[in-house]
Amino acid sequence: MNMNSIFKFFTPKDKKFQPLFEQAGSNVLKISQALLLALSATDLEKRKEYIKEVERLEHVGDDITHSIFLELSKNFITPFDREDIHALASAVDDIADYIHASASNIELYNVTHIGDAMIKLAELLVEMCTDLDKAIKELRSFKNIRVIADACVRINSGENQADYVCNLAIARLFEFETNAIELIKQKEVLQTLELATDKCEDAANVLESILVKNA
Amino acid sequence: MNMNSIFKFFTPKDKKFQPLFEQAGSNVLKISQALLLALSATDLEKRKEYIKEVERLEHVGDDITHSIFLELSKNFITPFDREDIHALASAVDDIADYIHASASNIELYNVTHIGDAMIKLAELLVEMCTDLDKAIKELRSFKNIRVIADACVRINSGENQADYVCNLAIARLFEFETNAIELIKQKEVLQTLELATDKCEDAANVLESILVKNA
Amino acid sequence: MNMNSIFKFFTPKDKKFQPLFEQAGSNVLKISQALLLALSATDLEKRKEYIKEVERLEHVGDDITHSIFLELSKNFITPFDREDIHALASAVDDIADYIHASASNIELYNVTHIGDAMIKLAELLVEMCTDLDKAIKELRSFKNIRVIADACVRINSGENQADYVCNLAIARLFEFETNAIELIKQKEVLQTLELATDKCEDAANVLESILVKNA
Repeated sequence: MNMNSIFKFFTPKDKKFQPLFEQAGSNVLKISQALLLALSATDLEKRKEYIKEVERLEHVGDDITHSIFLELSKNFITPFDREDIHALASAVDDIADYIHASASNIELYNVTHIGDAMIKLAELLVEMCTDLDKAIKELRSFKNIRVIADACVRINSGENQADYVCNLAIARLFEFETNAIELIKQKEVLQTLELATDKCEDAANVLESILVKNA
Repeated sequence: MNMNSIFKFFTPKDKKFQPLFEQAGSNVLKISQALLLALSATDLEKRKEYIKEVERLEHVGDDITHSIFLELSKNFITPFDREDIHALASAVDDIADYIHASASNIELYNVTHIGDAMIKLAELLVEMCTDLDKAIKELRSFKNIRVIADACVRINSGENQADYVCNLAIARLFEFETNAIELIKQKEVLQTLELATDKCEDAANVLESILVKNA
Repeated sequence: MNMNSIFKFFTPKDKKFQPLFEQAGSNVLKISQALLLALSATDLEKRKEYIKEVERLEHVGDDITHSIFLELSKNFITPFDREDIHALASAVDDIADYIHASASNIELYNVTHIGDAMIKLAELLVEMCTDLDKAIKELRSFKNIRVIADACVRINSGENQADYVCNLAIARLFEFETNAIELIKQKEVLQTLELATDKCEDAANVLESILVKNA
């Protein structure tokens, strides 16, 4: 039993939080896809456009997060525990922030060499955000909680892979990159991408906690 | 309606938290002013003195934060939601920490070139902390909530400017600074100043949330 | 009075959280010891083995943290405030994460020179984790709260020392290390060790807050 269950019989079907969370999930998936397109682009003008799209979507995400926090301030009774709503919205917002930061660093630092590790990290982010988006949609009905549980397992495994890919790439930089300034650029973009995958794991952990409380 | 409102009719006029928050607000404003003086000083001995003052004020801030957390542990009924009190005190403490870290890095790394971007970031911090201090004072009466709302808008706009200034300065470092060690120093000081402005925004977000709940 | 006290007379003697916290405390102490052994080892094969042990213990710690969060989701009534349980488990988990990250960076970056400052930081971590482990054990009975209070004071003083050691070492790097890539490696390992000591302080702050509420 948790605090929320006590009040649950008062709760009208949630029409406020779930639509906002679904917007946030679908938006962070779009950001991850725009990032992958940016990193895969060989045409520098195209890359610039995709990075602009990442930036635009990050602003959209900011507004969604802001709306969730506003609803949280206005409503005492919530569909899930307040702490979980806050943590989930923050984690999704952080994913978008780190994806945006890595894309924007590529432009600011004028990173021209996009290695396999960066592409692989962007691919992992698309997979993780696809699972996140799917799991968030399932919060609506809680009819198929297996979908949420499976998504969380895959996101956790994705984060482990991302760790491995990032660590290996940085080890290689220290082994082979003799230009310190180039090493700083590459290392920071890799680590920012890896931070985005950490935040996917944070989001999955909140989903798991919501599952346990509401199962 | 929120949890706190239920108990509010029990609440005596808050004499514990508001004075501590006002001390914290006034202290963080003083820290930002000492930072700007340190960065603007051309005399290295003067700069050292102002950095010492930043350090002293950061310790004062630590004590205030500690007192707020202690009151939070001792009191079940609080003038605002516990989570907001904790978040506001933490954000103000973090501003002081990052300002202190950037000042202390200038000394530790023996940074001799203080560029325009650093000065501009310090100026933005003074503006943001002035607004923060003003908004915190208004929490006392809630008579003029426009003052709080306006301060939050300006702090958010200040953070956007700080982002822009910092990004541009780092892009220029990567373009023109050929000495990698100098680049590392400058980049870290710039990013630490920018983190301080992020925390001003965090504080403004908490103030907004308090406004929504208590308006 | 706090929320929890209201329900406390319902609370059966806690058999869930305390054993998990004691496991977490004893595990983080073992990690810190393995780190010190790794850093002190002159034989590179031995060092590699100790780093593997750090990694293994970090996974053990992850499972303990996960169990604590799971219990938190399943139980409405807890021996301490939910926020304190969450914050304490997170801080101990973060200590383990940063210790693991610093050990793994030594391997990944192929850091061959382990200076006195790194060893000193690892020694401080062992002392702080010894105190943390001792204080956590005292939560069981609350009979000897002096033990907890003293441990917190020593952990805070340890963090101050760690700050000083780390700052001095980084200042020396900027003064004497002319190889930028070597500087980046050394600086990152030092700063990651220092972050681990910050998290020890966070854990001590939560213990202090539990003391105040339950004394």
